[in-house]
Order: sequence, then C-alpha cells, then structure tokens
Amino acid sequence: MIGIFDSGVGGMTVAKAIEKTLPEYRLVYFGDLARTPYGSKSPETIIRYARENTEFLISKGAKLIIIACNSAASVATETLKEEFDLPIFEVISPAIKKAVATSKTGRIGIIGTRATITSGVYEKKIRKQNSSFKVYSTPCPLLVPLVEEGWFEKRETKMILRRYLHPLKLKQVDSLVLGCTHYPLLKDLIRPRIGKRVKVIDSSEEVAADLKSYLREHSSFAKELTQNGRHHYYVSDITYTAHSIAQRIFGREIQLNKTTYAPQSGEVKSEK
Amino acid sequence: MIGIFDSGVGGMTVAKAIEKTLPEYRLVYFGDLARTPYGSKSPETIIRYARENTEFLISKGAKLIIIACNSAASVATETLKEEFDLPIFEVISPAIKKAVATSKTGRIGIIGTRATITSGVYEKKIRKQNSSFKVYSTPCPLLVPLVEEGWFEKRETKMILRRYLHPLKLKQVDSLVLGCTHYPLLKDLIRPRIGKRVKVIDSSEEVAADLKSYLREHSSFAKELTQNGRHHYYVSDITYTAHSIAQRIFGREIQLNKTTYAPQSGEVKSEK
Repeated sequence: MIGIFDSGVGGMTVAKAIEKTLPEYRLVYFGDLARTPYGSKSPETIIRYARENTEFLISKGAKLIIIACNSAASVATETLKEEFDLPIFEVISPAIKKAVATSKTGRIGIIGTRATITSGVYEKKIRKQNSSFKVYSTPCPLLVPLVEEGWFEKRETKMILRRYLHPLKLKQVDSLVLGCTHYPLLKDLIRPRIGKRVKVIDSSEEVAADLKSYLREHSSFAKELTQNGRHHYYVSDITYTAHSIAQRIFGREIQLNKTTYAPQSGEVKSEK
Repeated sequence: MIGIFDSGVGGMTVAKAIEKTLPEYRLVYFGDLARTPYGSKSPETIIRYARENTEFLISKGAKLIIIACNSAASVATETLKEEFDLPIFEVISPAIKKAVATSKTGRIGIIGTRATITSGVYEKKIRKQNSSFKVYSTPCPLLVPLVEEGWFEKRETKMILRRYLHPLKLKQVDSLVLGCTHYPLLKDLIRPRIGKRVKVIDSSEEVAADLKSYLREHSSFAKELTQNGRHHYYVSDITYTAHSIAQRIFGREIQLNKTTYAPQSGEVKSEK
C-alpha cells in the first residue's frame, strides 16, 4: 500500500495525481485535520507530527511513504529517512527537478507557507543542482485559509494573489513552483496573475511521475505493494470544510474515516 | 493562580484585560499554538483539547479557569464544569449579559469562528434571557489568519471585513459582540464598517469585570489565589508570529515558555 500524509486534505491533490498516473496501486491517506495547518508551526513541532503520521500509515499497511505536505517535506524529510526503513518520497525534489529542467532563464519563483519558505529548502536544492540559478520565494500564508473557505471566485482572493505574486513577477521568473498542496486548486487564478509565459509547476503531478519511474525500476518491490482493493482516507478530525474540499479535488464523493491520536491525559512534558 | 487558556495567543487580550482590572492576581496562561486554530475544528476535537489544557493549567497551580477562546467556550464549557471541581469562567456569558443590558432595539449581531457560530450558543443564551431579542450571526473564518499575518492596514482586510459585516449592517443591529479573542485587535477597523452608532462589545473586558465581582463576593476563595510573583505564559509551540502578536496585545515584550503535550507514539485509537 502507498502511504500518503498531509496536514489536511490539500495533499489529496497528490493522491489524485497518483491515482491517475498509477491506477493499479492502492493508497492509504492520512490528513492531520485535528492539528492543521502545519505551515505556520515550528520545525520541531512539524517533525514530531510527521513522525506520528508515518507510524500511523505503517500501522495501516503502508510500505512506502509520500510526504504530501510541503511544510513537512521541508523540515522533516531527513529525520523520517533516518528513522524509518522504507522508501520515502516527498513533493519538493520532483518539482525542483522539473523546474531546473524547464527553466530557460534560470530564474525560478517559489510560493509556499511560511514554514516551507523560511526553511529555504527549495533555494538550497536548486542551487545545489545549478549554482547559477536565481531563486525568488514568497510566503503566502493566507492562501490556505482562502482555499479552505472555498473563496475561489472572490475579488479579495484575486487581490491577495496579485499582492503575493507581484514581487516574483518583477523578478521575471520563467517558472513558478506551487510549493503547497493546496495551491493547485488556485492554478487557474495564479496563471493569469503571474503571466502566461511563466511555467507553473504543480508538485503533485511531478511526484506521481517520479514514483512511477521508481516503481518501474524496482519491480519486485512494486509487486509487494498491494495492487487491488480500495483506497482508504483517514483524517484526525472531520472539519466543516473537509468534505467539500476533498470532493472538489477528486470530483467525486470521498469517504473520510476519522482516527484519533490519543495523547495520554496528564502526559505533559514541560520545557522551560 | 488564575488559569487562562486559548487556542493560541489571541486569548492574551483576556489576560491583558484581567491584568488591568485585577492587577493584584497572578496569572498562568496556556496557548495551544501546536494545534491552533480551534475555530475550524469539530466540537469533539475541541472538547478533547479543552480538557487537556485545563489539566495542564491545574498542574501549574491554577485554582480557577478562564476559557479565553470562544470556540472552546461554545462547545466545551459544560463538559469542563462537569469534569473539574473548580470555578470555570468563559468569554461568552459576560459578553451576552452586556449585550442584553445595552441593546435598545433588541437586535444583536455576533461575529466569530465557524465553530462558535455553528454552535448557536450566543443565540440560545440571548433568547433564553429575552425571547423577543433577534440575534444575527456571521462566521468570519479569515479574520484570525489576517490578524496572525499582521495585515491591519491592508486594503484586503478592510474589504473582507466589509463583506463579513455587511449582512449584519443590513439587519440594523445596535450591538455587535466580538465573539473571538483575536477580534479586539481589529476593533478600530470594525467600528467604522459596522457603523458608529453600533455598540461593539469586547468579551475580554466583560469577563474581567465579571471575574472582579465574583472575587469580591467570594473573598475567602480570592485570598487562596496567589497574589504575588509574576505571570507565566506557556505555549505548545513557538510559531513565527507568536511573539509579535503577544507584543502587540500587551504593548511590551512577553516571555513565552514552550511546553509539549507528548502523545504516546503508536497510541492511535482508530474509529471507523
């Protein structure tokens, strides 16, 4: 089973892309809606959550993990790779590979949550591949709440997008990485505002393509992954807008199963 | 010690009001920034968090609890009163008392998070006091993220406020309850948009006044509350904007102590 986790339901854009690219595999998804969002939280807290989510997915039969949350991918990938003995994919590297391959001017823009942008992970990874590349990034903390509210048609959403994208437009980037799994839902609003000649890179599609080649190269491992039955979608809370966002992403009704992390009452560690 | 909890640092508006009204008492504050916000989460999850926060404050010496989060006050007050044997205050009842006392036309507006508004608690409580009162409410889910971003001067914030307040204005309310502890930070933007003749009711001031009369009436209990030393501010995460919001509320530097609720790894309860 392919395990996928995100801070909420945004990561379902990744599940959707994988389902489309690799329809023969079974997925188990976990969305941490009880603690969402991750993007404004500290690296230390996000790492703790990522570890717990991975343990949960393994307990449900996952043999491979996809970190479908850019904030978690930014700060927790290395820790998870050290601590868990199974293949770990994340949404950042495939998007970077694509951006480096397609950019002609070497000017790449990144948008994401505060955790993702502050981590500087995109910049470091891109410049490691090609130190002449210029990377411009902007945190866009209001986009997730706007998506969660379903404000796709509102004038304020368009104004806020313009405000966030304006500095990147001035820098004349020729590629823009959507560094948050909620953002593909805003793709149609982003494209005209960043400019039609800018290539918009959607990490969910890139990670699905990457996973496909990995499974082709590791055919005996690929056989181990259960290849039939239905997908399972777990969430740690059923929030007001969860169903409608899930439905918007998949274009069909999705059954969300609630699961609870139960912290031991009184189990409080205090650090001063 | 007076214990106060909130989903984040917004509840510090309540701590600030109590500090001003009752400077002789010592406070212990807990802001659950690792799981913030509560307003979009389900009642069941919010109740679980409220219980844990109360246990934490008691472990730090609290003899009285103030629920300084409208979302938690809306859905968790009864449970906490049943489960804990100490006085429990919350931000809703005092604001309602004030609104009912000051409204002349009997038309009251309420703004808050989705959890607060969906709970219908304000309407129920107001109409219990006077069934001829009309209560109009609007969930304003984007206001917390806008405050957290510090977007106090931005045009988008003003437009979003106007959009949220417009239906209440049409209903000609003469009192508006700020049903979320973040909203007092937007008071200066709310006043001209709802209309100058509308009385804006800030729960933090009302709960402080209410607590003051309670302590006057229960003087032997009041003596038990520690009356010297300094206040303690605990948070479950230090997020990017926590310090700046705390500082904006208090008008001075606030030392935030990080504390961690440690869920047992693998301790996962699954409900289908």
